[in-house]
Amino acid sequence: GIAPAVHAQATIRWRLTSSFPKALDTIHGAADVFATSIKAMSGGKFEVSVHAPGELVPALGVVDAVQAGTVEMGHTAPYYFFGKDPTFAMATAIPFGLNSRQLTAWMYDGNGLKLFREFYDQYNIVDFPGGNTGAQMGGWYRKEIKTAADIKGLKMRIGGFAGQVLTRMGGVPQNIPGGEIYQALEKGTIDATEWVGPYDDEKLGFQKVAKNYYYPGWWEGGAQLEFYVNKAAYNGLSAEHKAMVENAASHAHTVMQARYDARNPAALKRLVAGGAKVLAFPKPIMDLAFKESMGLYEELNASNPHWKKIYADYSNFRRDQNLWFRFTEAQFDRYMQSAKL
Amino acid sequence: GIAPAVHAQATIRWRLTSSFPKALDTIHGAADVFATSIKAMSGGKFEVSVHAPGELVPALGVVDAVQAGTVEMGHTAPYYFFGKDPTFAMATAIPFGLNSRQLTAWMYDGNGLKLFREFYDQYNIVDFPGGNTGAQMGGWYRKEIKTAADIKGLKMRIGGFAGQVLTRMGGVPQNIPGGEIYQALEKGTIDATEWVGPYDDEKLGFQKVAKNYYYPGWWEGGAQLEFYVNKAAYNGLSAEHKAMVENAASHAHTVMQARYDARNPAALKRLVAGGAKVLAFPKPIMDLAFKESMGLYEELNASNPHWKKIYADYSNFRRDQNLWFRFTEAQFDRYMQSAKL
Repeated sequence: GIAPAVHAQATIRWRLTSSFPKALDTIHGAADVFATSIKAMSGGKFEVSVHAPGELVPALGVVDAVQAGTVEMGHTAPYYFFGKDPTFAMATAIPFGLNSRQLTAWMYDGNGLKLFREFYDQYNIVDFPGGNTGAQMGGWYRKEIKTAADIKGLKMRIGGFAGQVLTRMGGVPQNIPGGEIYQALEKGTIDATEWVGPYDDEKLGFQKVAKNYYYPGWWEGGAQLEFYVNKAAYNGLSAEHKAMVENAASHAHTVMQARYDARNPAALKRLVAGGAKVLAFPKPIMDLAFKESMGLYEELNASNPHWKKIYADYSNFRRDQNLWFRFTEAQFDRYMQSAKL
Repeated sequence: GIAPAVHAQATIRWRLTSSFPKALDTIHGAADVFATSIKAMSGGKFEVSVHAPGELVPALGVVDAVQAGTVEMGHTAPYYFFGKDPTFAMATAIPFGLNSRQLTAWMYDGNGLKLFREFYDQYNIVDFPGGNTGAQMGGWYRKEIKTAADIKGLKMRIGGFAGQVLTRMGGVPQNIPGGEIYQALEKGTIDATEWVGPYDDEKLGFQKVAKNYYYPGWWEGGAQLEFYVNKAAYNGLSAEHKAMVENAASHAHTVMQARYDARNPAALKRLVAGGAKVLAFPKPIMDLAFKESMGLYEELNASNPHWKKIYADYSNFRRDQNLWFRFTEAQFDRYMQSAKL
């Protein structure tokens, strides 16, 4: 018999390298959700294999690998690459930035995605929002943080871009792989660490060695992940497969935030039962962090045209979002949070 | 030549009836986003035509039409059908219910979607989340609402299920089509109306005839839309097309909330410039509404097994969500809302 043309069409097999180990099941899982959707929608004619860090590419090699076409896709937190250009950070989270819904709104209906498509073009990357953690916690501290003086000399494991703000506040950011944080905190080699939020933090057991659990994570009010697609690989896709990438990314984006939201509450309760002391950062600490963040952004505006262009749009959007959210969204939430439910 | 089998495959053409006129471009538009995605992903082999109310089916005929298979799909706010069963309302919004992110979390990673799939089975419906408006405003009032006594006898145009709570508070809910509200408010036939939020309300011009614009819309802390698919039609789809329906629905769900969030701030500013007075409901009003809502839910628990089963899960989820959101999410947002941006 004659095989119909469609069966002769070769299956497209792509490789996606994730910056996140399988143990971070919500974040790593967003790439699995994406790949499962692509396979199902294409009837197996377009398959994306998901690889943990180190299988093909190191955790922080995602941009280089996608740029070079070593892999067709990556799933990462863009702010890891602030060393290449701090502009990357705005696609994940910057201190005192947009929250999860606001960042999604900026990407999908503001100028966010448009501006980042332009920015990423120099890296041969086409980006898609790929999940959000929601507002993260402010981390685990061996001692309570009561005044700005308590930040001076504080050795804290904290992600790169926010580390610049911590430095300006007098702290000492530390770069320690996830697997070594617990021991460093236990020994006192570091005074504090941030990670994500209850659901992920619980797995690492920090409450046993640094019980003061602060909020909010002012440097990550809504940390977005992105899917990166190599530009040539993307352009080689059919219109059908391009649309599948867009829709599967949106599905993964939605599912990942839903998983964090659904799973954090029970984890927080278990952490508190296990000895965690949940504390708000004092206002003077927040104010100092805010001042130093805005100071950093002014410097970047002056030194980096990519940053300046995107931050101008981002910061206008942020101002308007917070103007609006303070009314009905905040008041509804505040009432519910104080209600006897 | 021999046409390959794939070309011989007939195009699937579905009809989707929306409960929303094109003028509500964000809500009606979610169905357009869905249909555009389905067509693009299938290469035109699966097409969904979107119809405004009245073209095929009246706005409130969606459930009957999908149930009977008159149309393959609908896009609606389930709470419109509280008269069939108040359980429908939980898939959109109930007074003092889940906010937008919380409802999405319940649907995608809690038991929400699972429970509603069971519930809708009796109506031959398979449901998918299809957008959210976010927390709505509390509406437009000719006179200020200062005490619970101001609710007594208040004639207010308000959606069905919330109207039951308003009745318990002493108010008089009115059912008036969108196109006739302005005149009724101008003439004083009604004292107040609720609609959606700044972006949609602005189009109807209520600030000209009832300038007191209250928040929060305690009956709609996050109003979800859904796509309804006729069960037999859904079961007749290939696995590929089923996956496309799920992913396109998620994409539309995300885009719709993004559009409201991105567009509400500028509309609010224009409304205020046009004379709207933005006011918070006094706490005694909120407390009365809360008490009457909880009283209604107790009665429904006693009288309606569908409600009881789903509300048990919903209310547990709501309690845990508000416990968690009060920490880092609320504190981050509060700081940003009071910051000079």
